[in-house]
Amino acid sequence: MNNNMEKCNCLVAQSGGPTAAINASLAGIIKAALANEKIDTIYGAVNGIKGFIEKKILNLTEMFEGQPEKLETLATTPAMFLGSCRYRLAPMEKDLEDYNAIFGLFQIYNIKYFLYIGGNDSMDTVAKLSLYAKTHNYDIKIMGVPKTIDNDLDCTDHTPGFGSAAKYIASSILEVAHDAYIYNVESVSIVEIMGRNVGWLTAAAALARNEYSTAPHLIYLPEKAFDQEKFIRDVKEMLTHRKHVIVAISEGLHDENGKYISADSSQVDNFGHVMLNGAGKHLEMLVTERIGCKVRSIELNVLQRCAGHCASKADIDESVALGEFAVKAVTEGETDKMVIIKRTSSTPYASEFELASIHEIANKEKRVPLEWINEEGNDILQPLVDYIAPLVEGEVATEYKNGLPVYLPVDHLFK
Amino acid sequence: MNNNMEKCNCLVAQSGGPTAAINASLAGIIKAALANEKIDTIYGAVNGIKGFIEKKILNLTEMFEGQPEKLETLATTPAMFLGSCRYRLAPMEKDLEDYNAIFGLFQIYNIKYFLYIGGNDSMDTVAKLSLYAKTHNYDIKIMGVPKTIDNDLDCTDHTPGFGSAAKYIASSILEVAHDAYIYNVESVSIVEIMGRNVGWLTAAAALARNEYSTAPHLIYLPEKAFDQEKFIRDVKEMLTHRKHVIVAISEGLHDENGKYISADSSQVDNFGHVMLNGAGKHLEMLVTERIGCKVRSIELNVLQRCAGHCASKADIDESVALGEFAVKAVTEGETDKMVIIKRTSSTPYASEFELASIHEIANKEKRVPLEWINEEGNDILQPLVDYIAPLVEGEVATEYKNGLPVYLPVDHLFK
Repeated sequence: MNNNMEKCNCLVAQSGGPTAAINASLAGIIKAALANEKIDTIYGAVNGIKGFIEKKILNLTEMFEGQPEKLETLATTPAMFLGSCRYRLAPMEKDLEDYNAIFGLFQIYNIKYFLYIGGNDSMDTVAKLSLYAKTHNYDIKIMGVPKTIDNDLDCTDHTPGFGSAAKYIASSILEVAHDAYIYNVESVSIVEIMGRNVGWLTAAAALARNEYSTAPHLIYLPEKAFDQEKFIRDVKEMLTHRKHVIVAISEGLHDENGKYISADSSQVDNFGHVMLNGAGKHLEMLVTERIGCKVRSIELNVLQRCAGHCASKADIDESVALGEFAVKAVTEGETDKMVIIKRTSSTPYASEFELASIHEIANKEKRVPLEWINEEGNDILQPLVDYIAPLVEGEVATEYKNGLPVYLPVDHLFK
Repeated sequence: MNNNMEKCNCLVAQSGGPTAAINASLAGIIKAALANEKIDTIYGAVNGIKGFIEKKILNLTEMFEGQPEKLETLATTPAMFLGSCRYRLAPMEKDLEDYNAIFGLFQIYNIKYFLYIGGNDSMDTVAKLSLYAKTHNYDIKIMGVPKTIDNDLDCTDHTPGFGSAAKYIASSILEVAHDAYIYNVESVSIVEIMGRNVGWLTAAAALARNEYSTAPHLIYLPEKAFDQEKFIRDVKEMLTHRKHVIVAISEGLHDENGKYISADSSQVDNFGHVMLNGAGKHLEMLVTERIGCKVRSIELNVLQRCAGHCASKADIDESVALGEFAVKAVTEGETDKMVIIKRTSSTPYASEFELASIHEIANKEKRVPLEWINEEGNDILQPLVDYIAPLVEGEVATEYKNGLPVYLPVDHLFK
């Protein structure tokens, strides 16, 4: 710890679920903070705000100063270099214990800038800490930096991490289609995609369509109620036109009463537990029962959020720049806000960064507008494709060693 | 169809399951056949020997002559450009119908060379057609070209396609580990890998280990009987050393009586059908019940065999060269054989190609030697790592357009 008290220190932490781009924002923050004359030491809290309370703190200045190539590897390393937490601060009128611990440590470490990279829950933490600081006249600038593959944060055009996940999903659907096309038999392939309440990621499957392949042939988002009878009719109708039907579905499909189709209490395992099969597996069984053709369900699972080797360059570059912008904002005195992306042009795609009040964002969820979904609820419309397309552009030059991607070691997370 | 009858024609077909490298062997065959003065037209049967019987025949000379860049795209396109079939010829003493059709078409199309790219079943077809030709003094040279992600063909050091699948599996395990490490809670991640009877692909997970990550921490191959009680003990023991346990398992795990752990007739779905959950899902539920920590199962599914964007350059290059070698062999008069890969040096890796009698190969299955698996049956040993390592080396320069991999159109498969 540098004892030059004229300058002050900066804290950064990550929270929520992994993405392929959250470390790119971290790299941007470290790069900008190292170059900023108002900042002395950059600290990183391990495992988010919860880890900070537990004093799990790394000196990122020591780890990265004078090593630009290490920062580049950080930017293309998936998941979270600093680790995550799922932790919600109590409202300060209810319990001050965490606030006392956090602001006590801010003082001990002379932290005047705190950047929190995360999703909805992390923005809630930013809002609560900002409110506490304001109420107690504590001099600290707090800024949220968005990330989530789900793309469900309000105010921002899109979220860092979404583009890379979208690229992985579309590439995988294209490859699954190539895989399915080889057999001269009727088949249905159901690909289950993340997004419990919002269909942005499932919609990204549509980018797999090209001049020879129209897969996915059906797309179901959770924004519209799902009707299993209609689904079977859709698949049957599609099978009258083609042998191979590829279907993209959201993990969060539910009926008009909000009941998830993935959970069915009549299915129990050996231990008498409700089977937690996903929506894909459920529909696989339904197609087997009702149509009887070859059917397969594929769950993209965590791979869609951690596939660093398939990251979108547009996403990674923008995430780095957004991190840099966040450092500029706090050192210019901005606080209680989140940095956001504003699309200034669609063709060609161009964006700029702005600030939004954190209270506009926290705990809100941005869903796919219904006007971007077709009437039948089994496909998406062109404006949604046009919205996602620029975000998957470009490939990251992943370094390989012994045939495997080279990522930054994260053994500090489990030591 | 070229009518120059002084030369003769060549037929190529593909069969079995998809790989990321089977089109590389096809590209090698087309490239060598285009350059070979003994060969006039190159025909491709769509959907294997079954499609040939149905006269689904493409003129590959017309499609590829003078277009080397198109051949390069073919070499890195996953799955099967010519489509597949799962079709077993009856022994000729039982039923001659297929033989009559096939040899009739050989005559009509003046085919003197037939190259069949595939796995075990395809080699059975090569053996049967060779026997028929020999018995009937029919002048045709027939050659098998191996491919299978499973690496279960006898005689050859390894099979084309295995290296690319191994690279995808190891890369995915590394990324899943990064994903798992971020949470500061005990967790078990179970990754289910293809290979019903052989554990070569599951063993490839070990390549994910590096200087900071020892994942996968447990590896179970189907070559050793699987004991669920021992598995629970292994996981518990591992959790005393580390928070995050990553387990690689084969889809084909079975107990000492040969009963697959994935099938359990006590589990039925809504329709009263046996639940076809995989081994991973089953063990996920077992860990939930018996250990109670956070647990997740991930099925790599078909992505491991069709991920062209993550292919091994060593695999693709070798597969192209093996295809070229097969053309050289048949035009020099070789028949009734399969081209094989012989490892001539381990460090550095070097190989050469040879021919093996098809009867040595067909219907045999190469399993992982027990001496390459540890005593406890929960990990593999260094010689197996050393065997796989060179096969995943190098990255293919996949072309991208609009952020997605560019593959060769396959719409002839479903027109």
